[in-house]
Amino acid sequence: MAGNIFGNVFRITTFGESHGKAVGVTIDGCPSGVVIDEGFINEELAKRRPGQSAIVTQRKEADKAEILSGVFEGKSTGTPIMLVIFNQDARSKDYSHIAEKFRPSHADMTYHYKYGNRDYRGGGRSSARETAARVAAGAVAKLVLRHFNVDITAYVSQTGHIKSEKPYQDLNFDNIESTPVRCPDLDKAEEMIQLIKTIKKQGDTIGGVVSAVVKGCPVGLGEPAFDKLHADLGKAMLSINAAKGFEYGSGFDGVTMKGSEHNDLFDQDGDRTITKTNYSGGIQGGISNGMDIYFRVAFKPVATIIPAQQSVDIHGQPSEVVGKGRHDPCVVPRAVPIVEAMTALVILDALLMNTSTRIDKINI
Amino acid sequence: MAGNIFGNVFRITTFGESHGKAVGVTIDGCPSGVVIDEGFINEELAKRRPGQSAIVTQRKEADKAEILSGVFEGKSTGTPIMLVIFNQDARSKDYSHIAEKFRPSHADMTYHYKYGNRDYRGGGRSSARETAARVAAGAVAKLVLRHFNVDITAYVSQTGHIKSEKPYQDLNFDNIESTPVRCPDLDKAEEMIQLIKTIKKQGDTIGGVVSAVVKGCPVGLGEPAFDKLHADLGKAMLSINAAKGFEYGSGFDGVTMKGSEHNDLFDQDGDRTITKTNYSGGIQGGISNGMDIYFRVAFKPVATIIPAQQSVDIHGQPSEVVGKGRHDPCVVPRAVPIVEAMTALVILDALLMNTSTRIDKINI
Amino acid sequence: MAGNIFGNVFRITTFGESHGKAVGVTIDGCPSGVVIDEGFINEELAKRRPGQSAIVTQRKEADKAEILSGVFEGKSTGTPIMLVIFNQDARSKDYSHIAEKFRPSHADMTYHYKYGNRDYRGGGRSSARETAARVAAGAVAKLVLRHFNVDITAYVSQTGHIKSEKPYQDLNFDNIESTPVRCPDLDKAEEMIQLIKTIKKQGDTIGGVVSAVVKGCPVGLGEPAFDKLHADLGKAMLSINAAKGFEYGSGFDGVTMKGSEHNDLFDQDGDRTITKTNYSGGIQGGISNGMDIYFRVAFKPVATIIPAQQSVDIHGQPSEVVGKGRHDPCVVPRAVPIVEAMTALVILDALLMNTSTRIDKINI
Amino acid sequence: MAGNIFGNVFRITTFGESHGKAVGVTIDGCPSGVVIDEGFINEELAKRRPGQSAIVTQRKEADKAEILSGVFEGKSTGTPIMLVIFNQDARSKDYSHIAEKFRPSHADMTYHYKYGNRDYRGGGRSSARETAARVAAGAVAKLVLRHFNVDITAYVSQTGHIKSEKPYQDLNFDNIESTPVRCPDLDKAEEMIQLIKTIKKQGDTIGGVVSAVVKGCPVGLGEPAFDKLHADLGKAMLSINAAKGFEYGSGFDGVTMKGSEHNDLFDQDGDRTITKTNYSGGIQGGISNGMDIYFRVAFKPVATIIPAQQSVDIHGQPSEVVGKGRHDPCVVPRAVPIVEAMTALVILDALLMNTSTRIDKINI
Repeated sequence: MAGNIFGNVFRITTFGESHGKAVGVTIDGCPSGVVIDEGFINEELAKRRPGQSAIVTQRKEADKAEILSGVFEGKSTGTPIMLVIFNQDARSKDYSHIAEKFRPSHADMTYHYKYGNRDYRGGGRSSARETAARVAAGAVAKLVLRHFNVDITAYVSQTGHIKSEKPYQDLNFDNIESTPVRCPDLDKAEEMIQLIKTIKKQGDTIGGVVSAVVKGCPVGLGEPAFDKLHADLGKAMLSINAAKGFEYGSGFDGVTMKGSEHNDLFDQDGDRTITKTNYSGGIQGGISNGMDIYFRVAFKPVATIIPAQQSVDIHGQPSEVVGKGRHDPCVVPRAVPIVEAMTALVILDALLMNTSTRIDKINI
Repeated sequence: MAGNIFGNVFRITTFGESHGKAVGVTIDGCPSGVVIDEGFINEELAKRRPGQSAIVTQRKEADKAEILSGVFEGKSTGTPIMLVIFNQDARSKDYSHIAEKFRPSHADMTYHYKYGNRDYRGGGRSSARETAARVAAGAVAKLVLRHFNVDITAYVSQTGHIKSEKPYQDLNFDNIESTPVRCPDLDKAEEMIQLIKTIKKQGDTIGGVVSAVVKGCPVGLGEPAFDKLHADLGKAMLSINAAKGFEYGSGFDGVTMKGSEHNDLFDQDGDRTITKTNYSGGIQGGISNGMDIYFRVAFKPVATIIPAQQSVDIHGQPSEVVGKGRHDPCVVPRAVPIVEAMTALVILDALLMNTSTRIDKINI
Repeated sequence: MAGNIFGNVFRITTFGESHGKAVGVTIDGCPSGVVIDEGFINEELAKRRPGQSAIVTQRKEADKAEILSGVFEGKSTGTPIMLVIFNQDARSKDYSHIAEKFRPSHADMTYHYKYGNRDYRGGGRSSARETAARVAAGAVAKLVLRHFNVDITAYVSQTGHIKSEKPYQDLNFDNIESTPVRCPDLDKAEEMIQLIKTIKKQGDTIGGVVSAVVKGCPVGLGEPAFDKLHADLGKAMLSINAAKGFEYGSGFDGVTMKGSEHNDLFDQDGDRTITKTNYSGGIQGGISNGMDIYFRVAFKPVATIIPAQQSVDIHGQPSEVVGKGRHDPCVVPRAVPIVEAMTALVILDALLMNTSTRIDKINI
Repeated sequence: MAGNIFGNVFRITTFGESHGKAVGVTIDGCPSGVVIDEGFINEELAKRRPGQSAIVTQRKEADKAEILSGVFEGKSTGTPIMLVIFNQDARSKDYSHIAEKFRPSHADMTYHYKYGNRDYRGGGRSSARETAARVAAGAVAKLVLRHFNVDITAYVSQTGHIKSEKPYQDLNFDNIESTPVRCPDLDKAEEMIQLIKTIKKQGDTIGGVVSAVVKGCPVGLGEPAFDKLHADLGKAMLSINAAKGFEYGSGFDGVTMKGSEHNDLFDQDGDRTITKTNYSGGIQGGISNGMDIYFRVAFKPVATIIPAQQSVDIHGQPSEVVGKGRHDPCVVPRAVPIVEAMTALVILDALLMNTSTRIDKINI
């Protein structure tokens, strides 16, 4: 109800504010017997961490997750897995000047009117710091998905007007981590970096797009009607801070196509029914068909900028907001692990939900 | 879990197949004391109904909803409202030839492998006929929202490559129902109709975009973290058959903007804090800010086409699919009432969820 | 939220009022491939039906369920199964005299103040007629449970002060349906029938106890912490109209025992770990241990009686209530199929939830 | 699904094992603006704490809750409130001898077969230590309920065969905390203490009953059909470790009464409709009627005893279990705060759910 629980079977509950004591997550519904590799969880967190490169915010957080429960002798026990990340570099003094001001295009104003009592320090709960808990939970989901050979990869495909036009099949995903902007199209990556550096110098910000691909997804995941697999993916992506749009398969470009062009003809590959094209993005009727699932997520420019902006305060009086905190000139490089994490959560949840679908496949 | 329940407080459960006895919906959580105008519900259904104009499918369904419970002396009682729409013009014989075939880009193949046992007639549960139940439930949601002066309007903004470039503020929404394509930009509407007629003659189909605007939404709806208002809207829209993408506010275009351009500066209008621009699309931090909410939904071309298509059958053998059933050359005109219905369900649900948020506003 | 949805995986949504058009249920989450025997569903309904014997209410309802969706060629398809039971013998005129009166120990007063607008005819939604939908859904659950050899039996063990002291192991369950009071202890059954007849002549009512036994429940059903198997069974039973108490295993009598007496010592029977005694009632730590699950449900005397009772009306004015409608002198014989139905719903739901618990047992 | 989340609006997620690093709870859905009194939370925890008197387990835990999020300047913000209690006195070595043994009437065997991988130390997740998180969450719920003048009191009414026969109205609740057994009937309290001391000397355990009363509950809480207020209370109570039964109002004794005796006649007290008797226990049709809510919860004797018991191990081999850990001779004194906490969670949740019930009472 209050929005901090996600998933149906693999259900996560997150908590924490930007400048509070900690952020964290409790996973309820992780299958027992899965090796929980704490090192892997922290590698994933490192990808989201501030201060990792010159083109992201310089706020420094070690972002190390500690497991408080649910793991015994290195394996999940089926009971709740609690992961906590204590905050360390919270310079609350940076934010006192905006305690009563509404920063433009932040959540200050809406939180103020919704809740009355608001932790204004660093945006409180509305800070993207909340996503650290998602990445930790997503890392556990990835560990479970390894048992089913599902592989999830996200990367930056656009920054501002600089867009990689290559289809994902033509990209070498090994290049993603070789550049701080996480775009495997390395020529474009270099252009993006230059753009971000320019934008940063201006004290300004710029938007971008993260693309994602799921390989090895079994046939049959997703539910008809409301919980279609792409609908749940869409919600998951749109719930990430700064997300403005989601499309899968042919997406918005598909609207100009004819059915005779867009339909994916079926073919047989051994005992597997495949499609010759994949405008469907691996999902038909809301259910995975075994082909690659791919989608794109649009992110707006970060709202925190350095130049002074006119605003109003909580009393409705004119006010001026000047950026002081450390912030990201472009969110997309750090959004990549978050997109992967949310994808893992959705795919795993759909997979676990599917275990009770057919009477002839139920194993008790 | 199995995907046929939607909402948290205003929860709907739908059922029914294209060629079964009926489709329908049970609403659990409608507040008591609301006048339930059966005529209005059926007007809404008439907008979704097949056979309403020359540019949509000619399948004929009266689509009249009957209320079986939850209304007493014309008003809701707070107990479940059951709405049933009996099927009438179900020509099952049209579909026997595809009992074992997978129609390209339909849900035949994924349903087959997910469930084993599948009602192949007219797509069964995967048919867009399922959305009649959504429109009926959405009509009830609209009746509740009238108490709060929330107004929801959707219209067609693109069909194939024909796109209305006018912002919604420049359109006269009274024109929407004056043209069968439901595009209030009447010059474009005429072009769209011609395109659809041409496509129909080819036995082909074409995609399109539905835009929607919510006026009068109170400040404070939507939940932080996972259940952001736009995330729930996105899921709702993506759960509609044939939807491929969702964007709100600046959407995908916003990625090329700088923060200094994209930020919506606050201003004061009497006792109301407003924004000078509205790239945020009425939602900041996942919570409504009182400005107009607007978004776009992409729909692919309908998969059913007349020309023969190569495919495989449930045994993995080559097969040919030829379209015979009546179908829509373009889904978007009939998608308009569905988009409105799903929007009403999401906004009302968020509103009802919000009644327990602040201790100083709780009324028992 | 509003209380008309039950279950997690096998989720049912019920609707309908006593004197409305119909009562019914939509099942979301029934596994596909299960033979749905409509005759069996109606046999179960016949056990709950009014007018079935001289000791229950003479209101006559055919209570035939019609399947509107979710079944194709006799088997479940995995999509929602809608079951509707149209009302037939609704003599609404019987109730006009109590439109503004609060009948003692009925739900009239609480519904009035909770909802404002209330269908007073026959108690509306608060009528036990609502349980017909539960029995229909429970019958489907039983059909699914047959695949796992789970067997559920309920019977009357007490009526007023007449109590069968025999443990369930000493009773022949084949006798349950051989007597209208559904007590397999036939000597006690005869006494109970005489008591009920006497009570009926007085225009009065009497309470009773229904006992239930689940045989063949697999080890491992139920979740730790809040969703313990007996907690879900308890909620299910207490949600039945007129229920006042629930105990399982040793129950309230267990409080006087010492741990050394009450502990069920483990033993080995081939490859199966069993317990020598079963004070645990087949559930330990909230999880089934493979032994018989057994429990008791207390039902108060039905509130509708013939003699005049002092009361107040919706205006707070003194009022007199005189019973006129047909009613049950004792609810327990007709509660037996309802207890079985709710048990089936809980056990099946727990079983389906358990399919995603262990990584080494997940079958996709 | 996996059982560690409770509630609908005021939803709590608990985690933690007996001998892990911590136990704790995240509350999602606490209204904003409530003073969160950390001292009060710890007072409540102190009542549940081991080692508080001579008649409970001597395991020593400080049981101090630390708030990690959701509170700003002393008040709730509407975002998740995370409360963690770090474990301190976990003598894991006490339990190594039973790593592969099934202790009779514990959850060892069922956890083993359900999960495969099990934290056997002190019962792991199945330990009553889990209830510390419930008490912490319940304390927050009590703080919210203060705004509505709802008052919840539980006490011990029976220990073994020693039972206080006085109705709750005749007891002075101020006496509850004046005796370690928490029975306000002080003569009986003394007998109970002597019984518990005797039992303790024997290395044995004994069961008991906790009674509870809710005063000041508003009319209208609870939902019809499945989520009746007493059904949710029953589930909540039965989910507490060692609970075996639940009854409210007249309970099991009510089954021997006639309707003419049991019906609670209505009367008017100023502008309030009351009942002359209260066999209904403050709940009619599943909805609170404004009278006192009262109920009883049966607890079995604790399973951990000192004498040797025959058992089997995880390999199905005969085994002997000898009690070594510190344990409670009687659980009910420490169950009192847990019963109160679970009651607070249910009543508050019902109250918050009720804020969206009537169109004329919705406040946005």
